[in-house]
Amino acid sequence: MTFPVPTLPVPPVSVVGLGQLGGSLAAALAAAGRPVTGWDVDPAARDAAAARGVSITTVLTGVVVIAVPLPDLGSALAGLDLDPDATVTDVASIKGPVVAELTGVHGDRFVGGHPMCGTERSGYEATDPALFRGARWAVCLEPGTDLRRWLRVAEVAVAVGAEVVPVTAAEHDEAVAAVSAVPHLLAAALAAAAGQAGPLTLGMGAGSFTDGTRVIASDPAFVTALVTGNPATADALDRVRAQLDRPWAELVAAGHAVRTATRGRRPVRVPLDRAALLALGRAGGAVTRRLAAFVEGWVPDSPVARG
Amino acid sequence: MTFPVPTLPVPPVSVVGLGQLGGSLAAALAAAGRPVTGWDVDPAARDAAAARGVSITTVLTGVVVIAVPLPDLGSALAGLDLDPDATVTDVASIKGPVVAELTGVHGDRFVGGHPMCGTERSGYEATDPALFRGARWAVCLEPGTDLRRWLRVAEVAVAVGAEVVPVTAAEHDEAVAAVSAVPHLLAAALAAAAGQAGPLTLGMGAGSFTDGTRVIASDPAFVTALVTGNPATADALDRVRAQLDRPWAELVAAGHAVRTATRGRRPVRVPLDRAALLALGRAGGAVTRRLAAFVEGWVPDSPVARG
Repeated sequence: MTFPVPTLPVPPVSVVGLGQLGGSLAAALAAAGRPVTGWDVDPAARDAAAARGVSITTVLTGVVVIAVPLPDLGSALAGLDLDPDATVTDVASIKGPVVAELTGVHGDRFVGGHPMCGTERSGYEATDPALFRGARWAVCLEPGTDLRRWLRVAEVAVAVGAEVVPVTAAEHDEAVAAVSAVPHLLAAALAAAAGQAGPLTLGMGAGSFTDGTRVIASDPAFVTALVTGNPATADALDRVRAQLDRPWAELVAAGHAVRTATRGRRPVRVPLDRAALLALGRAGGAVTRRLAAFVEGWVPDSPVARG
Repeated sequence: MTFPVPTLPVPPVSVVGLGQLGGSLAAALAAAGRPVTGWDVDPAARDAAAARGVSITTVLTGVVVIAVPLPDLGSALAGLDLDPDATVTDVASIKGPVVAELTGVHGDRFVGGHPMCGTERSGYEATDPALFRGARWAVCLEPGTDLRRWLRVAEVAVAVGAEVVPVTAAEHDEAVAAVSAVPHLLAAALAAAAGQAGPLTLGMGAGSFTDGTRVIASDPAFVTALVTGNPATADALDRVRAQLDRPWAELVAAGHAVRTATRGRRPVRVPLDRAALLALGRAGGAVTRRLAAFVEGWVPDSPVARG
């Protein structure tokens, strides 16, 4: 049984930083017919966004998405005209330190976010309006987060095809250390060791080496910020090192079981409540749609292999 | 200035084991109009190969390619009718132990080989006649290797679009440990650690986690044999662990430099001489064509980044 759903108001979106993530987001919203403005210090990035239908302005209203490199987050809005009612979010790949810093600047108008997508390319030449389709987008629910603002940010993510994972900043960083920071370090170590072994070894590299080193083709400054800025990286790396101490046959079986586990999805409705939303994220689920009094989403329908 | 090149005799090829590698090889040779026969203990694999134009027979002549799983290598030809003049080769992913075992069985008729391709899929359903195109195919040149037989095996590899890397079995195993065995272990450790972290972490896995764990989707028995059977795996893993002890920014820069180094190719001609061929392999080069009195190939034309 379904009920008529009241149409929710759609806030405008202002994207600051029009590189791969910000440029793709602005282009995706423009393509969806949503009111979206953008700004970038680089005129070429502004021109590229304008060509995709994004209005270029320094006036920031609605949901303001800061999409600049990590070191520039704190100063990204300097000199721009920020509506005092705007909700501010970001797309940085670490959340604990960023949420602390930007909550210090913007108070409870800030809600941290992190779309789990992107490629080893970067910059406005790498924008792709389909980038977020099917991706997870973590949106941080801290004890002090304003749930209405959280929903506004979540709605933007859903509007471009992403699925929203409600998490605390600490949970986010622990998960991202394991699935992103550590893979980047392993890729770097694999490539560096092969480089030291010499030309014969590099010449023999095929599928598993190419796949295993792909992410370290990313901009080293970005990777270094991702790895060193995440407070959970060292522990996550230690956990992977500990796995490497297991007997190899046992390790191979455990890794294979996790990698090949098929997980179905069971639809759920979750009330607009911090604890319920965080429980959805902890169960491995995500929000796919916001309705007036609850959100729709899914959780995995089968036990998760535990390596 | 070019000279007329005498046409070289083309030996028939008999492939034993018609799974992903053997089935693809037989299909590729059949597609190229080469005389090729095949055998597999599985009638379904035989039928699939026959449908691709491969003659099914237990009579093995010319270049006999053993393409069965590692544990079955020694017994793969039992009960089959092996021409005493045939040259025998294999496609296994480890070479030191295999060359020792099969030289014990076949004497100097055996030449070890390893095409550096294949996917995480396996079995005859995964055959692909284009599998070898552009791939490196290591062919072992031991002190006792008969160079004429080596050239016959190399010619088969070149015929299906591969580039032949001349190596000793020990050099092969060291290189493959670094570019294949260790990537499989890292992928397993990454997946197993994420599995232990739980559903939220697995739910956040995106590009770098997916890429970094892809190879551990392969058949665990295959991976375990590859990792545990290679005498160089432990040292190669230690070298990657040592890289992980470097300061992260330095490690990221080193890995990035190796992964993104562009290496051009300079064409070379190499005499039919063991030392010259091995030097080509050590320089990171490969053989692309066999002529009567020499081979053609290439070496990298720029220094290799050394991580």
